[in-house]
Amino acid sequence: MRVAVVGTGLVGASLAGALRRLDEVDEVVGADADAAALALALARGLIDVAAPSAKAAAAEADVVVLAVPVSALPAVAAEVGPVMRPGAVLTDVASVKGSVVEILEAAAGPGVAVVGGHPMAGSHEAGADHASPDLFVGATYLLTPTAHTDMAAYERLHALLAGIGARVLAVDPGRHDQLVAVVSHLPQLAATTLMNLAADRARREHAELLLLAAGGFRDATRVAASNPSLWVDIAAENRSAIVAVLDEYLGRIAGLRDLVAAGDGDGLRGELTAARAARRALPGKESAGGVLVELRMPIPDRPGVLAEVTTGVGSAGVNIEDFGIEHAPEGGRGTLRLAVMGTEQAGRARAVLEGLGHDVHEREA
Amino acid sequence: MRVAVVGTGLVGASLAGALRRLDEVDEVVGADADAAALALALARGLIDVAAPSAKAAAAEADVVVLAVPVSALPAVAAEVGPVMRPGAVLTDVASVKGSVVEILEAAAGPGVAVVGGHPMAGSHEAGADHASPDLFVGATYLLTPTAHTDMAAYERLHALLAGIGARVLAVDPGRHDQLVAVVSHLPQLAATTLMNLAADRARREHAELLLLAAGGFRDATRVAASNPSLWVDIAAENRSAIVAVLDEYLGRIAGLRDLVAAGDGDGLRGELTAARAARRALPGKESAGGVLVELRMPIPDRPGVLAEVTTGVGSAGVNIEDFGIEHAPEGGRGTLRLAVMGTEQAGRARAVLEGLGHDVHEREA
Repeated sequence: MRVAVVGTGLVGASLAGALRRLDEVDEVVGADADAAALALALARGLIDVAAPSAKAAAAEADVVVLAVPVSALPAVAAEVGPVMRPGAVLTDVASVKGSVVEILEAAAGPGVAVVGGHPMAGSHEAGADHASPDLFVGATYLLTPTAHTDMAAYERLHALLAGIGARVLAVDPGRHDQLVAVVSHLPQLAATTLMNLAADRARREHAELLLLAAGGFRDATRVAASNPSLWVDIAAENRSAIVAVLDEYLGRIAGLRDLVAAGDGDGLRGELTAARAARRALPGKESAGGVLVELRMPIPDRPGVLAEVTTGVGSAGVNIEDFGIEHAPEGGRGTLRLAVMGTEQAGRARAVLEGLGHDVHEREA
Repeated sequence: MRVAVVGTGLVGASLAGALRRLDEVDEVVGADADAAALALALARGLIDVAAPSAKAAAAEADVVVLAVPVSALPAVAAEVGPVMRPGAVLTDVASVKGSVVEILEAAAGPGVAVVGGHPMAGSHEAGADHASPDLFVGATYLLTPTAHTDMAAYERLHALLAGIGARVLAVDPGRHDQLVAVVSHLPQLAATTLMNLAADRARREHAELLLLAAGGFRDATRVAASNPSLWVDIAAENRSAIVAVLDEYLGRIAGLRDLVAAGDGDGLRGELTAARAARRALPGKESAGGVLVELRMPIPDRPGVLAEVTTGVGSAGVNIEDFGIEHAPEGGRGTLRLAVMGTEQAGRARAVLEGLGHDVHEREA
């Protein structure tokens, strides 16, 4: 298998280096408009070959990963989509998915399969010099299948990502954008705001203020050091979801302010206690462990089954640890095999799948 | 020297263990209303002796540290203040200082010197089982001298805290409460709010949401796991400063929301870029290094000079690394010696001190 990675910044170069270590990947070709970035990825051994252009890299690849800024994606997709081989997979790593998946699907040539992707891993550092093939180990990697997504392409991509240690979760592209507005875009904007508020006060009134910045403040503002261009793009692409989340956040902060102002200790304790419980219950980065349970079910021959099944399981909060299809000899239908961790998650996944009308068989994997 | 630590939770037990390692400390006596907590501190070797009561611990001590919750401070101060020996030092570790220092000064018996304290170190874990004598190494430790603060007492406490590795910064009690509202109380309430918003959405709509919580979200919500009772107390004691900071924060978040809603990429980039620069410029936990510069000046015999000098240097953003007084043989006046790190900080400190009318001599220490 040949993989092309277009864009060898932090995420692209890390992904290239991770995929390069897999047995089933024969060659990773890199491309980047910035020749120095590309040379660095090559020098660091994160790609096998530096291609002269995105088009050249993509033309011969079985899997093409676009790891360029969101604002550059339309032009790059239009460049590579038409030259890709039928049967090849086109994916990306953008932090927004609704508009991006539409762009990729429109740009893909005949027989090219699009599967949007978003690795929930990164760093406030940028560039191939900070790249690491281990960036995705234990990280959640979102895939956003739609009614048009080809099942075999999805299976291939899922296997590659599981191979590099990521935990793959499927989610509808539009829903994805609502989710990341909460867990990623709001924390970014809150950190930016907190940092600016403190820095302005330090400048205007209290020179010693930032000397007091202990661990809590450092944690709360860490992502404020992120790349501004990345976030300007994200804010433009995910505007409505971000505005909705900021409005909810404003309402909640105002509510907390009123509790403090009123001296309502019980009300405040309720908020603090709920948040503490939720923070402690946050799933660990590592799997909770337990036995793998396999769910098998016949797959009918109609479009959209893949997206329905994978995003349905995701919406129950269940990671699909392993994913495969066994095609019936007569063609046209097959058996879908999902592995999930532990009987509790298996029960949740099964309930969703049966609710969708599937006939699910469960056994220990 | 005998030290009494009243309250052997995380901070008290850590401080006891740290002070116990100093050559000049002969014995650390602990007291706690919770016998199990006290026994644990003793079993872990963080105190030498477990006293039957706060009063018993304080009566024979040269330095008494109150490390109890803010809501318990008035009662504990009233218990120990009157029994302390003349010449002994009474300090505390509370996260708010204006009201607390007034309470301590009112409770202290004749000849007892009060110096408010606030170590900017802690953990979202609580209790002596998480205590560590290294908790304060490299951490900022705020002291809040007032016009009533005795210089020799301040010197003694400063030396102990420098001995356990803390970086001592002096700040006026009222100003302290404004500063921590920004760098500590706002981050706590913002983290609580973000965590509750995400958890409620996960419960109501998106079961998979918290599976997406990557490093940025984890960092942003880490302190949401803190002890609710501690924060209810802090919110009550520092109400007006917290409300003022929350109002400013609300205005800033609303401004950012409007930039996103309007698609104002340049405006948003300006905010993101300013925050990035400020975050990167945040002083490191460790000293910037460089040579120690000593500032010496004659000290006139009038009350309030100590607070004026130490908080003045602090307000210039300068840590006093070492602090001492040489008394004139004839008594009544003396020479104050401050050591600060590097010529740049020395220049800032000197400008402040000369502005206060002091005659400052500078040399490499």
